[in-house]
Amino acid sequence: MRSLIDIFDLSIEELDELIATANDIIEHPAAYAEKCKGKKLATLFFEPSTRTRLSFEAAMMELGGNVIGFSEASSSSASKGESVADTAKVISCYADIIAMRHPKEGAPYVASKNATIPVINAGDGGHNHPTQTLTDLLTIYREKGRLHDLTVGFCGDLKYGRTVHSLISALTRYTGIKIVLISPEELKIPGYVRFDDLEKNHMEYLETTNLEEALPTLDILYMTRIQRERFADPFVYERLKDSYILTPEKMALAKSDMAVLHPLPRVNEISVQVDKDPRACYFKQVLNGKYIRMALILRLLESVDQPSPAENENAELLINTIRCQNPNCITSVEQELDQIFKVTDKEYHICRCIYCESKQQTKEI
Amino acid sequence: MRSLIDIFDLSIEELDELIATANDIIEHPAAYAEKCKGKKLATLFFEPSTRTRLSFEAAMMELGGNVIGFSEASSSSASKGESVADTAKVISCYADIIAMRHPKEGAPYVASKNATIPVINAGDGGHNHPTQTLTDLLTIYREKGRLHDLTVGFCGDLKYGRTVHSLISALTRYTGIKIVLISPEELKIPGYVRFDDLEKNHMEYLETTNLEEALPTLDILYMTRIQRERFADPFVYERLKDSYILTPEKMALAKSDMAVLHPLPRVNEISVQVDKDPRACYFKQVLNGKYIRMALILRLLESVDQPSPAENENAELLINTIRCQNPNCITSVEQELDQIFKVTDKEYHICRCIYCESKQQTKEI
Amino acid sequence: MRSLIDIFDLSIEELDELIATANDIIEHPAAYAEKCKGKKLATLFFEPSTRTRLSFEAAMMELGGNVIGFSEASSSSASKGESVADTAKVISCYADIIAMRHPKEGAPYVASKNATIPVINAGDGGHNHPTQTLTDLLTIYREKGRLHDLTVGFCGDLKYGRTVHSLISALTRYTGIKIVLISPEELKIPGYVRFDDLEKNHMEYLETTNLEEALPTLDILYMTRIQRERFADPFVYERLKDSYILTPEKMALAKSDMAVLHPLPRVNEISVQVDKDPRACYFKQVLNGKYIRMALILRLLESVDQPSPAENENAELLINTIRCQNPNCITSVEQELDQIFKVTDKEYHICRCIYCESKQQTKEI
Repeated sequence: MRSLIDIFDLSIEELDELIATANDIIEHPAAYAEKCKGKKLATLFFEPSTRTRLSFEAAMMELGGNVIGFSEASSSSASKGESVADTAKVISCYADIIAMRHPKEGAPYVASKNATIPVINAGDGGHNHPTQTLTDLLTIYREKGRLHDLTVGFCGDLKYGRTVHSLISALTRYTGIKIVLISPEELKIPGYVRFDDLEKNHMEYLETTNLEEALPTLDILYMTRIQRERFADPFVYERLKDSYILTPEKMALAKSDMAVLHPLPRVNEISVQVDKDPRACYFKQVLNGKYIRMALILRLLESVDQPSPAENENAELLINTIRCQNPNCITSVEQELDQIFKVTDKEYHICRCIYCESKQQTKEI
Repeated sequence: MRSLIDIFDLSIEELDELIATANDIIEHPAAYAEKCKGKKLATLFFEPSTRTRLSFEAAMMELGGNVIGFSEASSSSASKGESVADTAKVISCYADIIAMRHPKEGAPYVASKNATIPVINAGDGGHNHPTQTLTDLLTIYREKGRLHDLTVGFCGDLKYGRTVHSLISALTRYTGIKIVLISPEELKIPGYVRFDDLEKNHMEYLETTNLEEALPTLDILYMTRIQRERFADPFVYERLKDSYILTPEKMALAKSDMAVLHPLPRVNEISVQVDKDPRACYFKQVLNGKYIRMALILRLLESVDQPSPAENENAELLINTIRCQNPNCITSVEQELDQIFKVTDKEYHICRCIYCESKQQTKEI
Repeated sequence: MRSLIDIFDLSIEELDELIATANDIIEHPAAYAEKCKGKKLATLFFEPSTRTRLSFEAAMMELGGNVIGFSEASSSSASKGESVADTAKVISCYADIIAMRHPKEGAPYVASKNATIPVINAGDGGHNHPTQTLTDLLTIYREKGRLHDLTVGFCGDLKYGRTVHSLISALTRYTGIKIVLISPEELKIPGYVRFDDLEKNHMEYLETTNLEEALPTLDILYMTRIQRERFADPFVYERLKDSYILTPEKMALAKSDMAVLHPLPRVNEISVQVDKDPRACYFKQVLNGKYIRMALILRLLESVDQPSPAENENAELLINTIRCQNPNCITSVEQELDQIFKVTDKEYHICRCIYCESKQQTKEI
């Protein structure tokens, strides 16, 4: 590992190591206070995300390092038309590690291929946000003492919730996980998550519209927000929304050691009365996010001199033969990038854009 | 004291201590250069205020600490609808102390009730800005050697000038203070300041429209800007404005040891020719602002483990019985906040919003 | 030297010293890691320029110092109407040195006259950007081992390219320099650069529209971007643009040790295939920019206690007799500034604004 673009860039062993390091930092913060002295993190936020940015900055500072960067694109050279690749090369002259947030999918991947320093994906559009998933995993680990043999409920908007898809995907690597998917019909988990993650990996899962029924079975409840804009019919939203709001009454139905997670910001999907419940872990999660980022920054800076792992080594690549159709892909705005697809299923002629991972079929079957 | 929301959160003794610490820092800066090593200040500026923000940041850095934060709301999670309470809880995971500027009155108070770290109010709308008042008091102390037995003139827009009202209010706690209020008729001090601060405390004061006549009597002249927009009739503004511009000619009328203060930024209400006059103290005031903030940050970080002082202990509170009518109150935008009023005058049925301190009458008398 | 506003504020000896210091920093970075401990750089960017800002910030941090500031005017007090002079005085209370970028020509000069700390011009409109020129000179020196006896080609938009004019101007001070000016007719170097810099200094120069013909003769090729907006007729742009794009094919015509420079950001005027060519020096140039800024910051902080050099000592000045006609001059927006002109040619009645250096004739001849 040289950069972290996708949670799957990490092996299970590397993930275990990061969690172990984070736990050690939590117990012995002073031992880490000077680890990154003289090092600089560049926070390149092409769209605002205060919580994520401040988490990275606090992490770097608690390691004794410094921070440079920008918090929105208007302050950046992007407005002058510079490519992500050039930005990555330039920033490599100023900093030791990059955390990049970008509205276009695949932008941090492009940066990692051009930077001479490690790049951390701090969110690329609706695509990846691996440090959020690391945060979630560390929180589950710290609350339950394990990442296996758990019943994990996801509640709310499971259709568009990027953090939900990522965490489900990450959990496929552990044994004994049972997933409970709680959402209105309109916001059910997309087919590709059900197929590619759950079914392909033979995971036990259950879909329901009823939070109250599901609650007593859960070890973890991962809440997300249901946005009014997702509903064509506002009356449907009004009718449904209360069913997915977590209240002290609903908490009374849950196990006494269930942990409630939420990626934040919350609007009203968890009542503020729940905050006092010792099972409410979403603010602890914020703290864990800082510690896992500290562990990650340390790990990536240590591995700078290691060779990059071979990538797409035995993969069949299609270079500049088809174009990515995803309007949110970085290739849609940066014309000079090669269009590269990796063949993922030869029989069905399926390939994926190496930047945004959109699927495409190369011919009818 | 755990947080500083209002200048009256400080007792006279605490205020004296802060001034003493600031003076000690000015004399022995090196002794303080590492006092906050490893600590972080979060500057949460929901509206821009460069001078105040940089003053806090410089203060923290001169104590050896670090700074994270944002300088306007567009870069913050507020645009995603997060409550001030949640922001305060999240930032408590990243920093050791918060300086918050917010356009809504009472927002820093809400933050202080939810953060697990000290909160400094760096200005909440037209309500409070206690570190400006501390700056003014330190400047007066350093220039005159005392905070009592002084004739203090306030000149300019006394109607809308928040810094003027705060400083007058703070000065009511000292003996022998005489206030001279110099303004056009249109911009006289509001009735509630005259009544609640001056008359209730039996302070000697004088109202005049004539700066030149008042000047010879003053130990301190606190200048503020008169904005064209305040006048319904532009001709009135044109006729009046020169009378309230401080020039070398007018300075000739003043005592040789009078001190001129101004909260800055200045536009043209003090001629740049006055800058060279040794009595011009407004840039020294900027420097004092940094030092008093250093003293304050130190004091609050030291008191983190002390219990919060009892607040509203014997007060009669009205909870969710009436609603605050102030459109600039934080409760006007954050619907989940309890509406809480403190009864301040039982006989006349008067109470005040605990967030923005707006007065309200609970029934006709 | 107290501040750096114009590259000509530096004598050749001072320039040599800066280059020597930068080279020493590159070789012994650890020796400089604490040189500015406890010092603060204020980056006052009244318009965004991420690359320049981050270069300054990285420079200060690699010297062990801290950074405060803002990255665009909307976050600054300028929006409240504060003068540059007052901002400079205020910031002098917070920091030890200023780097200022401003859209108005002469603003950093005004700041330097009012600050009590050194000011570095980080770009003032289309006027000066001396640290870019320092960067270019260090890069030429490091690539060629000398700043004399070189054939230097400038290609692209020579009419509007501020960095081109500055570097040509700076090169007039070295011997044996031959300048090759490569541009379409529409974007030739302006007459005043040809006259004031090249002809007045008897420099050898050549103008051509043909990059391919010029290439084999060059030791240095300084590329700049040609913007579509510069052409009245878009067809002319379309016809011309490819001739001025640097490609591997064109690189094949150049000397094996030619160095390609570019101030960045690049759009498409250098093909990304050229990046791999060892003669492509534009990313090294970025790194050099950081090192020369480190040298400059060090030098200016060391000289803080030295007296300012006498300026305009024997010059004949016109104070408030004529007004500057340049709409981009700082005097066009700050009414309180004295209008000062320096008589530069008595015979022809020519004088120059001391802020923006615009020429003006005081009477017909």
